[in-house]
Amino acid sequence: MDDINLHFTGDFHAITAANNLLSALIDNHIKQGNALAVDVKQITHLRCLDINDRELRHCIVGIGYGSRINGVPREEHFQITVATEIMAVLCLSENLADLKRRLGDMLVAYDLSGKALYARDFKAVDSMAVLLKDALKPNLVQTLENTPAIILGGPFANIAHGCNSVRATKLALKLGDYCVTEAGFGADLGAEKFLDIKCRCAGLSPACVVLVATVRALKYNGGVAKAELTRENLTALEAGAVNLGIHIENLQKFGVPVVVAVNRFADDTDGEVAFIEQYCAARNARFAVATVFSGGGEGGRILAQVVADTISDTTSQFKPLYDTALPIRGKIETIAREIYRANVTYTAKALKDIEAAEQYGGGSLPVCIAKTQYSLSDDPAKLGAYYGGGGDVTVSVRGVRLSAGAGFVVVYMGDIMTMPGLPPVPAAEKITISDDGVIDGLF
Amino acid sequence: MDDINLHFTGDFHAITAANNLLSALIDNHIKQGNALAVDVKQITHLRCLDINDRELRHCIVGIGYGSRINGVPREEHFQITVATEIMAVLCLSENLADLKRRLGDMLVAYDLSGKALYARDFKAVDSMAVLLKDALKPNLVQTLENTPAIILGGPFANIAHGCNSVRATKLALKLGDYCVTEAGFGADLGAEKFLDIKCRCAGLSPACVVLVATVRALKYNGGVAKAELTRENLTALEAGAVNLGIHIENLQKFGVPVVVAVNRFADDTDGEVAFIEQYCAARNARFAVATVFSGGGEGGRILAQVVADTISDTTSQFKPLYDTALPIRGKIETIAREIYRANVTYTAKALKDIEAAEQYGGGSLPVCIAKTQYSLSDDPAKLGAYYGGGGDVTVSVRGVRLSAGAGFVVVYMGDIMTMPGLPPVPAAEKITISDDGVIDGLF
Amino acid sequence: MDDINLHFTGDFHAITAANNLLSALIDNHIKQGNALAVDVKQITHLRCLDINDRELRHCIVGIGYGSRINGVPREEHFQITVATEIMAVLCLSENLADLKRRLGDMLVAYDLSGKALYARDFKAVDSMAVLLKDALKPNLVQTLENTPAIILGGPFANIAHGCNSVRATKLALKLGDYCVTEAGFGADLGAEKFLDIKCRCAGLSPACVVLVATVRALKYNGGVAKAELTRENLTALEAGAVNLGIHIENLQKFGVPVVVAVNRFADDTDGEVAFIEQYCAARNARFAVATVFSGGGEGGRILAQVVADTISDTTSQFKPLYDTALPIRGKIETIAREIYRANVTYTAKALKDIEAAEQYGGGSLPVCIAKTQYSLSDDPAKLGAYYGGGGDVTVSVRGVRLSAGAGFVVVYMGDIMTMPGLPPVPAAEKITISDDGVIDGLF
Amino acid sequence: MDDINLHFTGDFHAITAANNLLSALIDNHIKQGNALAVDVKQITHLRCLDINDRELRHCIVGIGYGSRINGVPREEHFQITVATEIMAVLCLSENLADLKRRLGDMLVAYDLSGKALYARDFKAVDSMAVLLKDALKPNLVQTLENTPAIILGGPFANIAHGCNSVRATKLALKLGDYCVTEAGFGADLGAEKFLDIKCRCAGLSPACVVLVATVRALKYNGGVAKAELTRENLTALEAGAVNLGIHIENLQKFGVPVVVAVNRFADDTDGEVAFIEQYCAARNARFAVATVFSGGGEGGRILAQVVADTISDTTSQFKPLYDTALPIRGKIETIAREIYRANVTYTAKALKDIEAAEQYGGGSLPVCIAKTQYSLSDDPAKLGAYYGGGGDVTVSVRGVRLSAGAGFVVVYMGDIMTMPGLPPVPAAEKITISDDGVIDGLF
Repeated sequence: MDDINLHFTGDFHAITAANNLLSALIDNHIKQGNALAVDVKQITHLRCLDINDRELRHCIVGIGYGSRINGVPREEHFQITVATEIMAVLCLSENLADLKRRLGDMLVAYDLSGKALYARDFKAVDSMAVLLKDALKPNLVQTLENTPAIILGGPFANIAHGCNSVRATKLALKLGDYCVTEAGFGADLGAEKFLDIKCRCAGLSPACVVLVATVRALKYNGGVAKAELTRENLTALEAGAVNLGIHIENLQKFGVPVVVAVNRFADDTDGEVAFIEQYCAARNARFAVATVFSGGGEGGRILAQVVADTISDTTSQFKPLYDTALPIRGKIETIAREIYRANVTYTAKALKDIEAAEQYGGGSLPVCIAKTQYSLSDDPAKLGAYYGGGGDVTVSVRGVRLSAGAGFVVVYMGDIMTMPGLPPVPAAEKITISDDGVIDGLF
Repeated sequence: MDDINLHFTGDFHAITAANNLLSALIDNHIKQGNALAVDVKQITHLRCLDINDRELRHCIVGIGYGSRINGVPREEHFQITVATEIMAVLCLSENLADLKRRLGDMLVAYDLSGKALYARDFKAVDSMAVLLKDALKPNLVQTLENTPAIILGGPFANIAHGCNSVRATKLALKLGDYCVTEAGFGADLGAEKFLDIKCRCAGLSPACVVLVATVRALKYNGGVAKAELTRENLTALEAGAVNLGIHIENLQKFGVPVVVAVNRFADDTDGEVAFIEQYCAARNARFAVATVFSGGGEGGRILAQVVADTISDTTSQFKPLYDTALPIRGKIETIAREIYRANVTYTAKALKDIEAAEQYGGGSLPVCIAKTQYSLSDDPAKLGAYYGGGGDVTVSVRGVRLSAGAGFVVVYMGDIMTMPGLPPVPAAEKITISDDGVIDGLF
Repeated sequence: MDDINLHFTGDFHAITAANNLLSALIDNHIKQGNALAVDVKQITHLRCLDINDRELRHCIVGIGYGSRINGVPREEHFQITVATEIMAVLCLSENLADLKRRLGDMLVAYDLSGKALYARDFKAVDSMAVLLKDALKPNLVQTLENTPAIILGGPFANIAHGCNSVRATKLALKLGDYCVTEAGFGADLGAEKFLDIKCRCAGLSPACVVLVATVRALKYNGGVAKAELTRENLTALEAGAVNLGIHIENLQKFGVPVVVAVNRFADDTDGEVAFIEQYCAARNARFAVATVFSGGGEGGRILAQVVADTISDTTSQFKPLYDTALPIRGKIETIAREIYRANVTYTAKALKDIEAAEQYGGGSLPVCIAKTQYSLSDDPAKLGAYYGGGGDVTVSVRGVRLSAGAGFVVVYMGDIMTMPGLPPVPAAEKITISDDGVIDGLF
Repeated sequence: MDDINLHFTGDFHAITAANNLLSALIDNHIKQGNALAVDVKQITHLRCLDINDRELRHCIVGIGYGSRINGVPREEHFQITVATEIMAVLCLSENLADLKRRLGDMLVAYDLSGKALYARDFKAVDSMAVLLKDALKPNLVQTLENTPAIILGGPFANIAHGCNSVRATKLALKLGDYCVTEAGFGADLGAEKFLDIKCRCAGLSPACVVLVATVRALKYNGGVAKAELTRENLTALEAGAVNLGIHIENLQKFGVPVVVAVNRFADDTDGEVAFIEQYCAARNARFAVATVFSGGGEGGRILAQVVADTISDTTSQFKPLYDTALPIRGKIETIAREIYRANVTYTAKALKDIEAAEQYGGGSLPVCIAKTQYSLSDDPAKLGAYYGGGGDVTVSVRGVRLSAGAGFVVVYMGDIMTMPGLPPVPAAEKITISDDGVIDGLF
């Protein structure tokens, strides 16, 4: 576990290196005469580091210090490695050839006349692919109970599609009877992007969706304060269950059978669990309790059985939520209407961004929504009950970014920070390693 | 070979991560109230990346963009990973405990009252050591002829001590009959630092030194233009051989037997090689021709035999050139006098730096000279013949930096760039990778 | 006229110098040890220049260039001189003692604990007053018809109170039978601030307000395109006149008799002018046509007579619109309700700013609204007809700034730029001066 | 006196405004498409302010803050107004036509191909001249004894030619029998530049030079510590007088009669004064004691008489020290040999600068040396006695700047700071102004 959470097989380092090589090549191109007339105010490719370092969020780089041998001054904004487009590219690539194509297609800057420039224009594609050739390969590990697990990639769920790599999934599908994959960060975000982006892109068709819920989260959505979540409260549970209901309904729109798994905590009462079971039954969703955290593999046996049964006795008719032929606004508004149950407004900047994205081929791509995972809306404070009012919720699109290499259009609903900072007492202060190499405090 | 020259086992990435974690912790400390009163104008620990990126040479980081949640503005100067003190620390550490001690001893900033602050003050030691725990371990590879080679570390020879890790050398000494190690970058720089820093620090005592020379380099030192180096020129060879003579004499001062290896090129004439053989004999240095580049292991057989013979029939009486008890200037001037054959001047800044370094414990450490490898002096244009004039050469000390963790005092003679830039046509443009992963153009 | 529009008597230069002296003293204080613990991220006093220079809008100053003798890095945002608080201070000061008090009261920064710091804390008050002592004196000039005019000050109407100095007005009141002063930038902005800030602060009580309108502006408010404004259009005039009606009603709320002056253009038809005359009569506002632009003083004779008659046969019962004892939000909402006919929303930042402003004594000051002059609302695109809908207009408060020296609280509704840029072809390119000093192209 | 030392007639403000208008026009040109292909790393025209503000010494301007409407990022280095080329231009201009020509000739940047760009290329000439039209006119003031004095201009003596304007001198020559002008900052700097630059440029031929000396300065040059300067010390005076001797000899090389004026202090003994008198007599220089500081005009009567006598009974045969037809290095070396009695070395940068300056017409201009005023050499610590050693002094040229508008080539010997900083306790803190306008503490 330590190894997985430290350098692991070095994939993130490889992505960091490839990303920053591209930046160095772009800046070197400018310094060496700028034959492509890159506009230093419109370089969209950002440097990255795999660390939470707010000091690098906004920088001026290329300061001359009075000497012409130094760089060309411009603004830079480091992001964390998982937020890079290369991370998304790696996770969506079928093979090395596809990786190279996608790397080359990354839109990295505009020239002084406003024309888009791509990574391939800077002759950076093959050297990036060389750095990424091993990172593209899935990593096989095992659980504490010795079942195999394949780990690869980690695109930031709030600005990218948020699920593991296509190659890892396809490898698992070949090697096992069942392949389970995670698409976290709220079913309205994680599942929607898994289904509309990754499955569509890779030609995957899931046989079943497991929607994970907890009693305490539903009570929280029903208005209970955090400190009170351990007490039984059927009224609040009923009020908050509307959130679960929406998610079930949402997932059913993709044509896939839905199993609700309640991740049971010690304080959950039988009455509460029973309520959810009935609630699911009324909505045509199967149900199972899971106690994997306390019980290990054994705690997941029932859930596994329900899923296996579902797969054997139903037929998934998976189809994505929207047609990519819709214009960008049409796609955004479909998701907002069907999933968030909300209207959409656009800032002036967003409308301009959409126009530019469509000009450069983004019109036919799926959209990748970047918004809070705490609410179905774009406002983290709007919990379960907000839909009651009947359609008067509005989400606001503030900007759009064409990730032409990854193959989607990022749609920003809210301020998404792509370079977090450290807290007052960073975890690093609590980590120790003994003189003979025993690590403590990593979790 | 490709793997060694790409990510290899990830050691450099680990050093990069540890280095930048420390930077993030320092900046976060400042942002969170700056209890240590760090002076943002005197942070000596620099961020790094393992890429030649002149755009990052001089930056302003921590720009607020009108929001208090962002960082604190200050100057930053990225360096390449091999130029970091952590690289030197890793290479000089005996074990994990020693690594932790050295990491903690790194002097990373001064506070507003001028007092030194160390990495340990920022509670960064263990978390850095966690990131470095595997990088500390030597990496075993093999040559094309299947002989084992141990690779670990790469401290920048122009600002650090420039040789591989203590642990790698000690492991090789345990495992083989002979352990050969490289200390490149001119014998006046590489060998002096290997002998005075690494051997002294690790208690190593070399049995023999091989001084590598080429006919063409000696002719170049004798005044021949580059384009003419392939023609026989015994006069120039004789003029340039004074350089070889100085290096032999220098190395003999350490009490170790010297073997001169001529790395023979196709154009070298027998007469030229014979001249060098006689020149060495007259200076009590053994001699062998090596043709390893064209002939592989077989081409090194004669040299190996001469070295083995030397080791068996002589006794090394190795001692470092100077006593660390000398004050910093005494140590610098001993090296200048005995090795560079030069007087020393100091800028006002250098004198101030020396005073500060001695105040913080640098007085008892060896010195690590940072200067050009192209000349025995600090001026790359001063070739072989310059010593003839008799002692009127002067080297100039421009600054001094205490590397308290690595355990030496860096002495700058000349402008040493610790973040290079890419050339007009970067190598990256010529590297290719086929769709099935075959790399070309890496060399 | 050239002189007035160039350096004139140097008042603006004096304000620039005083403003930048204060900045230099603050930064020097920080550099010399920062005894006041100034937070470099919270210096609210900005440098200024009397030129439109977007390049200085956002800067990093105090870059060290590797030397401790240089400044301390931080962000700076130059504004134009007329946007400085010192300009407002100068215009609201009764005398030198009052000027000194106000200069000292300027809130210029916060310390690291969040406490406000004032100009007086930096011992900058008297030296600024020395630089401003002559600028405080009104400047007497004459018109082309030799009538006297007093000119002093020019606070930026979109972020300050926008009218000339108290001392100039009081001097004119002493010297003449009638004193006419201008408060431009839309009666909802200029007149409201003149009446609620300057008159209240200086104890002035205007006898009459002249509201200037043009036929074409009213037609524009009625929906006519700019190119069509020269054609008679009584329908549009009637639609747009609602804007005039609102302004009349607004000004009558201050208890001062209102005279509407139509600044007649050649294309205005008699029918159009007659319509306005009737419209005013129906609203209890007197009316006069003015043709000063084409006819000089003679063109203003009728208007002057109407104003003189109004003053002699009515009694002004001037009172400000709101009581300063109201909390800041109460004052803002009164103006919004009574003048803009709009509701008010606040951003989170604005609410925090208001809290801070009240903490530092801003609660008892008048508010100074910074918003567009093109619309009664905060949206320049909302023209005359928008009020028809009945109260559903909302203005948004984005931030608040306490100008404790000037004696008001600036309330930002919209992005107000305090450092404009030059256009593609700057006026400077068209200005010429002959070898004997004749200037052309200044207007 | 207060007025002269505050805004006076606004000349410095006008220069500041003209200078910064040019900067704004250059940056606006770049922002609006950069038709001239200005290289943002090679803009030699700097912004200025008339205040000691180290915070502005090194800046980054044009930061975008994420919006394209802002400026283009680049480095800026504010200097003080007196250090600007426009100040020198103003002081060397014969009339408005000449001013315009010189303003246009200012070399303000290079384009991306390395070609020089001039102020005229940015269409900035006339608008700058408009701002400067009144500043070009000499200002008439009077002394405490009511003698007229003409004041105009103040070019920084360490980087410009350091004397008042040509127009002021010519006006004084027309109006009075004798015109006395000051050229301070050491006769090796101030007098040399007055004679070689201003007199040559304006066709002036001085009738007499007064060389001012003090007993204590000569003793200081003779090695006496500052605290001991009030005691008689004839030995030290004799040792230090060599400095006076060199200056007399230097000035005689220009063909102008020299009068030495001893500015007598209370502590100077008769013996010391007598020594200097004899010393001057032996070198063919007339001599007078002046006590103007304590005695007012009366204290200068004897000196005035000696000067008047000298003018009437000798004939000046003024000629500049060198021919401008010499190459730049020839001119520098002539001054170094004849005035500083020193050899010259050049840095690589200086040699490159000289080549560039000659390429752009600087070869035929006089040179304007920028060096310390504390020593005849470029090292402030080298006092009177240093010349004894016989020609082994070396001055080092570090860089060269073509001031094509001013009409000279600035030659940097040493680090000349063009933006000073404030001291720990700035004078501004001690200045007071009473409520009725009485200023105290200005001196």
